[in-house]
Amino acid sequence: MSADVAGGIAASGEFDLIARIRARIASRDDVALGIGDDAALMTVPAGLQLVVTADTLNAGVHFPADTAPTDIGWKALAVNLSDLAAMGAQPAWCTLSLSLPNSDPRWIDGFIDGFLALAALHGVQLVGGDTTRGPLSIAVTAMGHIEAGHALRRDGARVGDDVWVTGTLGDAAAALQSLFSGAAVERSLRARLDRPTPRVEVGRALVGLASACVDLSDGLLADLGHLCARSGIGAEVDLALLPVSRALARFKPEVRWAWQASGGDDYELCFTASPQRVEQVQQALDFAGVAGTRIGRIVAGQGVQALAADGAPWRAPRDGYDHFA
Amino acid sequence: MSADVAGGIAASGEFDLIARIRARIASRDDVALGIGDDAALMTVPAGLQLVVTADTLNAGVHFPADTAPTDIGWKALAVNLSDLAAMGAQPAWCTLSLSLPNSDPRWIDGFIDGFLALAALHGVQLVGGDTTRGPLSIAVTAMGHIEAGHALRRDGARVGDDVWVTGTLGDAAAALQSLFSGAAVERSLRARLDRPTPRVEVGRALVGLASACVDLSDGLLADLGHLCARSGIGAEVDLALLPVSRALARFKPEVRWAWQASGGDDYELCFTASPQRVEQVQQALDFAGVAGTRIGRIVAGQGVQALAADGAPWRAPRDGYDHFA
Repeated sequence: MSADVAGGIAASGEFDLIARIRARIASRDDVALGIGDDAALMTVPAGLQLVVTADTLNAGVHFPADTAPTDIGWKALAVNLSDLAAMGAQPAWCTLSLSLPNSDPRWIDGFIDGFLALAALHGVQLVGGDTTRGPLSIAVTAMGHIEAGHALRRDGARVGDDVWVTGTLGDAAAALQSLFSGAAVERSLRARLDRPTPRVEVGRALVGLASACVDLSDGLLADLGHLCARSGIGAEVDLALLPVSRALARFKPEVRWAWQASGGDDYELCFTASPQRVEQVQQALDFAGVAGTRIGRIVAGQGVQALAADGAPWRAPRDGYDHFA
Repeated sequence: MSADVAGGIAASGEFDLIARIRARIASRDDVALGIGDDAALMTVPAGLQLVVTADTLNAGVHFPADTAPTDIGWKALAVNLSDLAAMGAQPAWCTLSLSLPNSDPRWIDGFIDGFLALAALHGVQLVGGDTTRGPLSIAVTAMGHIEAGHALRRDGARVGDDVWVTGTLGDAAAALQSLFSGAAVERSLRARLDRPTPRVEVGRALVGLASACVDLSDGLLADLGHLCARSGIGAEVDLALLPVSRALARFKPEVRWAWQASGGDDYELCFTASPQRVEQVQQALDFAGVAGTRIGRIVAGQGVQALAADGAPWRAPRDGYDHFA
């Protein structure tokens, strides 16, 4: 485990790469041993549960091939922190398994810049991982904690609950479709695709308020469908209520609804809460500094019904992303 | 999150694949929530530290392209449990990020068979992960625990300590070289390459006895070198003392020393202990049912010196595996 990072240029081998990363990591008091041994040692405070999630990004599948390395680094951690946010957890640590076709030091430095910038925002310490030669693939496991028994699970929604989402929907999907069609992509939309904001503060603020929660990675209808299946209920969503960004507002509803309801990569939170909690939820969102919108309601039955402005059922062109479809 | 696993044939999408895996997992009492939500929830008992490691296997880099899927599944978990073993930790949970070029159900079932067979041996529960389309790559994060402050670290070796290794060395490297050269590979050697045995019981038994420990993945001299660097000391290894399997014993020492001292993929433990502890260490190894051999000593200075039978310095043809070399 050499520490040859002088000059920041030569990344001649796996051990140098690990040293490059290691030299740039801030340390938390609850990490007794970080990168550099066979495994890391951490302390989970008494009364807290450990929360763990793992998500991978592959080139060409989870981000366009032209994505800047710093954005890839950011997004690889963001999609994992988004999962922790959906549980109401406080992020703490992560591991990173990085497969690279070569060891271009500029690419690596850019990647680390983006990854560690987001880690620093949330006080997350990288405690382990490995680098291997292979097609570009980034596997992250993120860990955090939550007051025992207080996690926001998918299975707690009840009939009559409101359905909420944070932020705006469909921006990343619109950017992706523009890219696929060869059109120019508006900068604000591309930023939403490349640098999603994990709603960690919202998740924390919703502990004790939301009855269920899921993060939106595969598309609103698909992910809300997962929540409904786990809760054993159904949901109705009013498409006219879906929050829309300024950039997307110029599209006709019929065009943007497909992105908003079925597009992926939003990384907003979708949660349910009792109508009696509307004011408290609004205060929690204000506290977190993130907009929230009530878009529908939990109903008896199963499945998610999207309703057009006239209340008629609406069918999405496709149901979320399925990487094996 | 559908649960369409009937018949065990159709693996039509990502969610089915997750369901296939989920349906086959045993559950631990300390897992409050496993696969199926945004993240898993676990309890770390008071007084124990969390131990975390992450290692990836890529096709053609970490296993030959013709490796059976069941062996790939086994090895992907084994290399991670080996890291936990090197800390003296008790394995508990893992996540799995699986990138696959297609969703061949026979391949997937074979992979899961091997992965879960080893998990069951050590009571490890798969608590999360994802499946994505991409070149074959398997990223695992393994978690366990250890009595606080008692982990076997790399930095505790002291001058005068004995250097020990478990099992036999060089078998996997010999198998790999036979494969590369197109020669027939002896079955026992190939098994050592494809199905390494993580020395979990040995690691547990060495807590309080070993002064430092590392697992052998990159080759004895390279990995012992990492231990020495972290401990701020040097080591001498007597090549004539390296434990040799029956299959490897028929090779001349000069041939097999390269595999034994510098070959990778052994997944044995290399540890140091005071000479006053010889009998206790031997009892611990007997208790774990694994052979152990004293192969050298910790000395002042730095670096690892390999000595031939006549005591003369020996230089390995190469220093371990470096995936970016």
